Amino acid sequence: MAGSPSRSASRRLQLPLLCLFLQGATAVLFAVFVRYNHETDASVWHRGNHSNADSEFYFRYPSFQDVHAMVFVGFGFLMVFLQRYGFSSVGFTFLLASFALQWSTLVQGFLHSFDSGHIHVGIESMINADFCAGAVLISFGAILGKTGPAQLLLMALLEVVLFGINEFVLLNLLGVRDAGGSMTIHTFGAYFGLVLSRVLYRPQLEKSRHRQGSIYHSDLFAMIGTIFLWIFWPSFNSALTALGAGQHRTALNTYYSLAASTLGTFALSALVGEDGRLDMVHIQNAALAGGVVVGTSSEMMLTPFGSLAAGFLAGTVSTLGYKFFTPILELKFKVQDTCGVHNLHGMPGVLGALLGVLVAGLATREAYGDGLESVFPLIAEGQRSATSQAVHQLFGLFVTLLFASVGGALGGLLLKLPFLDSPEDSQCYEDQVHWEVPGEHEVKAQRPLRMEEADTQA
Amino acid sequence: MAGSPSRSASRRLQLPLLCLFLQGATAVLFAVFVRYNHETDASVWHRGNHSNADSEFYFRYPSFQDVHAMVFVGFGFLMVFLQRYGFSSVGFTFLLASFALQWSTLVQGFLHSFDSGHIHVGIESMINADFCAGAVLISFGAILGKTGPAQLLLMALLEVVLFGINEFVLLNLLGVRDAGGSMTIHTFGAYFGLVLSRVLYRPQLEKSRHRQGSIYHSDLFAMIGTIFLWIFWPSFNSALTALGAGQHRTALNTYYSLAASTLGTFALSALVGEDGRLDMVHIQNAALAGGVVVGTSSEMMLTPFGSLAAGFLAGTVSTLGYKFFTPILELKFKVQDTCGVHNLHGMPGVLGALLGVLVAGLATREAYGDGLESVFPLIAEGQRSATSQAVHQLFGLFVTLLFASVGGALGGLLLKLPFLDSPEDSQCYEDQVHWEVPGEHEVKAQRPLRMEEADTQA
Amino acid sequence: MAGSPSRSASRRLQLPLLCLFLQGATAVLFAVFVRYNHETDASVWHRGNHSNADSEFYFRYPSFQDVHAMVFVGFGFLMVFLQRYGFSSVGFTFLLASFALQWSTLVQGFLHSFDSGHIHVGIESMINADFCAGAVLISFGAILGKTGPAQLLLMALLEVVLFGINEFVLLNLLGVRDAGGSMTIHTFGAYFGLVLSRVLYRPQLEKSRHRQGSIYHSDLFAMIGTIFLWIFWPSFNSALTALGAGQHRTALNTYYSLAASTLGTFALSALVGEDGRLDMVHIQNAALAGGVVVGTSSEMMLTPFGSLAAGFLAGTVSTLGYKFFTPILELKFKVQDTCGVHNLHGMPGVLGALLGVLVAGLATREAYGDGLESVFPLIAEGQRSATSQAVHQLFGLFVTLLFASVGGALGGLLLKLPFLDSPEDSQCYEDQVHWEVPGEHEVKAQRPLRMEEADTQA
Repeated sequence: MAGSPSRSASRRLQLPLLCLFLQGATAVLFAVFVRYNHETDASVWHRGNHSNADSEFYFRYPSFQDVHAMVFVGFGFLMVFLQRYGFSSVGFTFLLASFALQWSTLVQGFLHSFDSGHIHVGIESMINADFCAGAVLISFGAILGKTGPAQLLLMALLEVVLFGINEFVLLNLLGVRDAGGSMTIHTFGAYFGLVLSRVLYRPQLEKSRHRQGSIYHSDLFAMIGTIFLWIFWPSFNSALTALGAGQHRTALNTYYSLAASTLGTFALSALVGEDGRLDMVHIQNAALAGGVVVGTSSEMMLTPFGSLAAGFLAGTVSTLGYKFFTPILELKFKVQDTCGVHNLHGMPGVLGALLGVLVAGLATREAYGDGLESVFPLIAEGQRSATSQAVHQLFGLFVTLLFASVGGALGGLLLKLPFLDSPEDSQCYEDQVHWEVPGEHEVKAQRPLRMEEADTQA
Repeated sequence: MAGSPSRSASRRLQLPLLCLFLQGATAVLFAVFVRYNHETDASVWHRGNHSNADSEFYFRYPSFQDVHAMVFVGFGFLMVFLQRYGFSSVGFTFLLASFALQWSTLVQGFLHSFDSGHIHVGIESMINADFCAGAVLISFGAILGKTGPAQLLLMALLEVVLFGINEFVLLNLLGVRDAGGSMTIHTFGAYFGLVLSRVLYRPQLEKSRHRQGSIYHSDLFAMIGTIFLWIFWPSFNSALTALGAGQHRTALNTYYSLAASTLGTFALSALVGEDGRLDMVHIQNAALAGGVVVGTSSEMMLTPFGSLAAGFLAGTVSTLGYKFFTPILELKFKVQDTCGVHNLHGMPGVLGALLGVLVAGLATREAYGDGLESVFPLIAEGQRSATSQAVHQLFGLFVTLLFASVGGALGGLLLKLPFLDSPEDSQCYEDQVHWEVPGEHEVKAQRPLRMEEADTQA
Repeated sequence: MAGSPSRSASRRLQLPLLCLFLQGATAVLFAVFVRYNHETDASVWHRGNHSNADSEFYFRYPSFQDVHAMVFVGFGFLMVFLQRYGFSSVGFTFLLASFALQWSTLVQGFLHSFDSGHIHVGIESMINADFCAGAVLISFGAILGKTGPAQLLLMALLEVVLFGINEFVLLNLLGVRDAGGSMTIHTFGAYFGLVLSRVLYRPQLEKSRHRQGSIYHSDLFAMIGTIFLWIFWPSFNSALTALGAGQHRTALNTYYSLAASTLGTFALSALVGEDGRLDMVHIQNAALAGGVVVGTSSEMMLTPFGSLAAGFLAGTVSTLGYKFFTPILELKFKVQDTCGVHNLHGMPGVLGALLGVLVAGLATREAYGDGLESVFPLIAEGQRSATSQAVHQLFGLFVTLLFASVGGALGGLLLKLPFLDSPEDSQCYEDQVHWEVPGEHEVKAQRPLRMEEADTQA
């Protein structure tokens, strides 16, 4: 107990000071670099001769709002399944995503839209920033319950930079297609988080095991997250694809893929469940794998059948991962993956990248017609064959795995800095470490009050 | 106990095998028949000379997403009111709708958009498939808690086919107008489910009565479903109406109707409640009747006043139905209607059909101008008088009731097949039959942990 | 107890009779005055020579749906934090907003779109009506738990009228700009409610203090409200701004402001919290202040940096308000502000108005180009200088405070009418006064049921 006050004070101040510093620094960088783009600047927009219907805003804002709901409602509530970590799950999601979207506006802006000394922002940068926040939240899922909020902010600080660089290498240098981010978002976010979780391995986590499960109501809250992610995933994959047929086809393919992954998940969950019972963990997570697995290929001519097949495969693989691979991951590989992001984002992300390799390799001018330009511009311009595109896609997957692994390792070392506030092994998955927590039942159940009594008391 | 293992195994395998079979068969049929339509196929779309803003996707996708939220979030959570059946309510909604939307893509495709040997899909087929899934979920509401998931999938298998045929008869053969589905979705879904529930009548259901009510938190979860259904209903009714004034007017009428049904519901609920207290069952359900009752007429020139009057009527009738008619339905007609779909979808659906008869019969060229073509094409083309249209609308209601009743009876016989896994009378409304269920409170309430103690423990 | 039956009956009938009267009167007024506008009337719309893409519906309906979700889901669930008042919070939100949107359609229609004896309605009137409902719900937040539903309806009856007049004075007479309603919605709603709460001051409220806090699950429900408000706020502020760059820029500015207010809130909450712990009340509320504070200025050339700075300031001020000023407000000023609307809507609303004064005063033709016409038409037309616009903006704030204060006082006197049903001091924040309330746990936790046993019972 001796000496703890000052240490306690320094720990107490980590979160507020880090928030203030990061927000201050971000604001200064915004002041210097960030400007409205040609569609959001009053004077520039009105200089042009165009109708309001030409604004990209009207083609992309509804999708943006769906993505926004997925990031904040979807990811936030999906992680509420832990019985005593609901405040942290939804609260830290809120904090992390709010920081990540600002920081990624800067990082992605420097890499993608830096022009005449300024970053220009509009609806596309909003969607891209939310995508990056999504990747950070995937990594958060791997270490949920085992890190403090200051640690998480530092993770986001690093991860957003590496996300931006990896995305730049894939999309701009390698000419890889990845509209819904099977590689750039899901694979990257998952393996970054998993390697980071490996570095933070806690041999004594058993002390908090009793808090690691769900309770009845927390599982229902988590289903809010699941369903919002599920319904809006078609918007996620299509948010940044080519307008017209591209966006339309992407939404359609994702819709089918998710439906099939749901049936695959129910089938496998019942098949491997004790007495044939379904497991909420599978339904909450694996049913979403259909959205991840077509992240690369849904803008391509995947066909409706291809979407169903891909989704079904992802749902089954993901369910089997939860059942059989997660325990191995912890026992053999010392990776404690709280939300099973390896099953929902890792394996389906890699599968999605490989599916993209396949579908890109099968691309023909006949199948895409003049649409080839918008899906595979380098093939359309004759710079590449379909096979070459496929090889580049495959190479993109390896680059992503490399960036994610190295980044996760660096992140783990960063988060292990001894002065950082981290919960004890016996205090993991516990809101009280970070929050003022009210009791479960402040007021005792009362017998029904009669109106007459109330009147009499008057 | 003797002999049960093998039987138990066969029951255990029903759900997974049925899921795998249905998904496999659907995927094969998709491979053979389903193709992108002219707006989702890369080569066909880019062949045309049109701007991206011409794509129907941008006019209908936001409405689709609202409908999608209603089907999965709305229906799913609305049924979570049961205290021990939340996993099943939201989970089986998820399963059923995921299957129904695939299967109805095929059935509706064969009937409505089969061309040169193929079904062509895009945003309209997505909305239609979700509508059909909505009808299946309405029927699910009537038998909620009394059937297993394999039984429900078989119900959906049959119902989707009959839904498609009934819709084809009404819209294509009879020239009936029913944009928001007062007949095709609500009346059909409700009476299909009610007749089915009649066939499955359980005289011993008393054994599970203690689980049939709600608890405080389950009622709040159910309100999530209510509110999402309520806010998005304008999009539901307008999702497939004519673009421009048609869609705009439909959304507006539905908005007013819902507001009035909400006031009607509060008024009647307090009027008939003990000591003037409001009943959550009424608010959760009857307030939505305003959306159902204008399903047919909201695209017509119903007028804002007409919308208010219709909504108010529906809210009051529905509330009175919950209070007085549901008990009679069970005692006299042996229909155990778990969610009261007769009050929310049955009566308001029939009222909505009759309102459509009235408003169609009052249609004049003066009132609709050139808009007559998009609302009543057969009248505009001179093939029918307004009175004739009204008669056809009325006939459509009878056809729907016939299809629903015969279909529900067939469905009931199908679900009674003795080898199908069905919960015992004493195990109805109970998640544990189908799910691994965690406890309510795994960790005891702790007294607040002091940061100093945590530090000391370090 | 003697004599209470008749009195009880008269109290019991207040809500139903008031609902019936208000709905009836509204319907009659709709019948006489409300008509479809040129975009929703079938004959008028088709008379014109325009494409469907010209309909304002497609530019504003997605934003409307987001606003609609904020009003009903956002406000409804945000107030569910009270442990025993969830039914009332979400239910009365539903009732009040359903009435307010009808009534404000009339009031705003008379003031803004009355033409040839009729009010013409369409998507803009829907958005405006929802905005007014939002203001009513803000006032509701100040008196949450201390009034009955009949009182609340009377409050809405008065407040909607004053809201409409105040808005008319600001926008039409003073030429004030306030797209997202920092003044017309937030400042007005907050101070109306706060003054009303002052008039209804209950010195004996201590008797209900034990019910005034949250419990673990009610805080999670409240976060549903918070997050939906947060994600859709960009649509709220931009719903009625000029199409094109105006709407685009407004959404972008609001997005940044909210992100910064979230970081500011986390920083300050941890800074002032015991042992550095975060407080859910701050996160649920103050993080939203970023949306309020740019309600006036987000359509202007606020710059991305300006948005961050404003949001951060609002988040910090709001958090400090919850921590330090709310107790003073009750002790010194006798204002019992249940939800702390002074911190979320009052102070940030006033700050937002002042920010609008500043940004309007800095407006130049150079910065806005031809966009000046759509943001500051009076400056563009040479009728005013930027400084004059700023002075008018400031004057608009005072007018709003005046209308809100006088209106709130009148409202308080109205609600104090002795025959109105109001909960006892000891029955505040208690659902049982108004609702049939089920218990918390009807069925005891059971040990897992084995499938074999179920089979044997058959």
